[in-house]
Amino acid sequence: MAKEVILGIDIGGTNTTFALVDREGNIVFKDNIPTNQYADARLLVRRIKELIEKQPQNVKLTGVGIGAPNGNYYKGTIEFAPNLKWSGIIPLTNYFTEDFHIPAFLTNDANAAALGEMLFGNAKGMRDFIMVTLGTGLGSGIVVNGQVLYGHDGFAGELGHVIVEENGRQCGCGRKGCLETYASATGIKNTVVNLLGQTNEQSELRGFKFEDLSGKIIEQAASRGDKIALKAFGITGEYLGKALANVIAITSPEAIVLFGGLALAGDLIFKPTEYFMNKNILKIFEHKVRLIPSALPSNDAALLGAAALAWKELG
Amino acid sequence: MAKEVILGIDIGGTNTTFALVDREGNIVFKDNIPTNQYADARLLVRRIKELIEKQPQNVKLTGVGIGAPNGNYYKGTIEFAPNLKWSGIIPLTNYFTEDFHIPAFLTNDANAAALGEMLFGNAKGMRDFIMVTLGTGLGSGIVVNGQVLYGHDGFAGELGHVIVEENGRQCGCGRKGCLETYASATGIKNTVVNLLGQTNEQSELRGFKFEDLSGKIIEQAASRGDKIALKAFGITGEYLGKALANVIAITSPEAIVLFGGLALAGDLIFKPTEYFMNKNILKIFEHKVRLIPSALPSNDAALLGAAALAWKELG
Repeated sequence: MAKEVILGIDIGGTNTTFALVDREGNIVFKDNIPTNQYADARLLVRRIKELIEKQPQNVKLTGVGIGAPNGNYYKGTIEFAPNLKWSGIIPLTNYFTEDFHIPAFLTNDANAAALGEMLFGNAKGMRDFIMVTLGTGLGSGIVVNGQVLYGHDGFAGELGHVIVEENGRQCGCGRKGCLETYASATGIKNTVVNLLGQTNEQSELRGFKFEDLSGKIIEQAASRGDKIALKAFGITGEYLGKALANVIAITSPEAIVLFGGLALAGDLIFKPTEYFMNKNILKIFEHKVRLIPSALPSNDAALLGAAALAWKELG
Repeated sequence: MAKEVILGIDIGGTNTTFALVDREGNIVFKDNIPTNQYADARLLVRRIKELIEKQPQNVKLTGVGIGAPNGNYYKGTIEFAPNLKWSGIIPLTNYFTEDFHIPAFLTNDANAAALGEMLFGNAKGMRDFIMVTLGTGLGSGIVVNGQVLYGHDGFAGELGHVIVEENGRQCGCGRKGCLETYASATGIKNTVVNLLGQTNEQSELRGFKFEDLSGKIIEQAASRGDKIALKAFGITGEYLGKALANVIAITSPEAIVLFGGLALAGDLIFKPTEYFMNKNILKIFEHKVRLIPSALPSNDAALLGAAALAWKELG
């Protein structure tokens, strides 16, 4: 009998990656196409179908799962995504269902990552946890009682836009002091630059232009003992840990999973985050909440998450 | 046919109130007994049974719903409640089921209030909302997708213990700067006293001993135009509104329902709270979240909430 698979799709501003993923999270086939070459999302759907049908795999496609920026789970739409060429509201699940004649589901990237972690990663078997993705910004997918917390309009889980510093750093959302302006690759870069301006401490990071600095470079400096880099990780972990203590009081998760570039810095980010999370946690939650790394492979996490969404919906 | 009713019970430090409540939230019979006269919770259960059985009502009792401090929904227990005589862990739903031979359910006061609002009050038909009870402290019951958010251990929804002021006021929980030290009857009282110490502004509140001040007295002063009292409401609403903007980013509710003594102050508390909530809200949630008063009668809210829990569980 043909093996059942899901078509998992990760829509990015540059590339759209897609894969056939089985129930255990194995990728049977993977490919990608440049998103912006398709002026109409319908053409992108058709192209994916052609490429899938060329595959001689003995598989049975049972559903489509999509992770997309500004994805609305309830409506199956991408809405006003600033990094995509398609303007307005794109009914993407409809397009897939029309062409593939199978059920299609869509959610945003962070929620997809949370589902991937729940089905294939370190949150297996958990019913209450929070996935935090530390990339250019900070995304989060909150799982409550085994379900993604979508809220009234599908847009819940914006932990990155909790205000943690009154009149703090300017955020892309138009407000000031959002968590993601401190706890993200962008945030730690700004923290480094602030520290360089505040002290005369020697640092290899003084040798970089602002625009060349990155989370990776700061991580490498920190691992060589660079004091400014270490301090920047400490400050990042302090903001993140305190914010996590607050969100724990609201949703009482079993674990918090860190994912993304900054999370790969290991102890450099985990230690201070854990310290400030536990220092600020409400007593009834003490020693109950684990801070753990994601088990999803960085490159395929979005794909696996998208596939997990459909596997979960199809039961 | 006998009318189906739930035995709703509100366990307080001083009194335990109980009532027979029908599916529409009508109270058929109500009584109360002094909680602490019963050294063993089993004796309290037995006494309630006696008093219920004396009633000649033509009703059919189908379940028991209990609202209790430190109530654990998952286990049906009251755990280490500081204001009750019963120490340790009390398996209260077991006691009720043993004596009444019907299903019993238990949750904490704020969650019960949220369920009461959902079944009988202003949150009818809502699937995502937050109930905020402004009493001596600040309690919250968060409803997500039609279910109370209990979290991993049953203790989620502690909005009152989100830290909103670094090194702020001492909280009863042992930490500093929790929301409930600002946004509660106790909080506004402390705010008034701070304001009296900071300025020479005339105020009728200078005529009160600290221990005599109350939310009600401050409300009355404010309604007469007392500037200190008005400013205190403004500050209280600022803390509450900002905290609500943050929790909206996490759970995306349709509405936030304010309940309790301070909420009865109407515009005095609603206006500043709404202003700061909307001023600090993330753009995608703008104009989506309503701030509304509870429709539950103050005296019976806990009872109706407890009954609502059982009605909801029994479907």
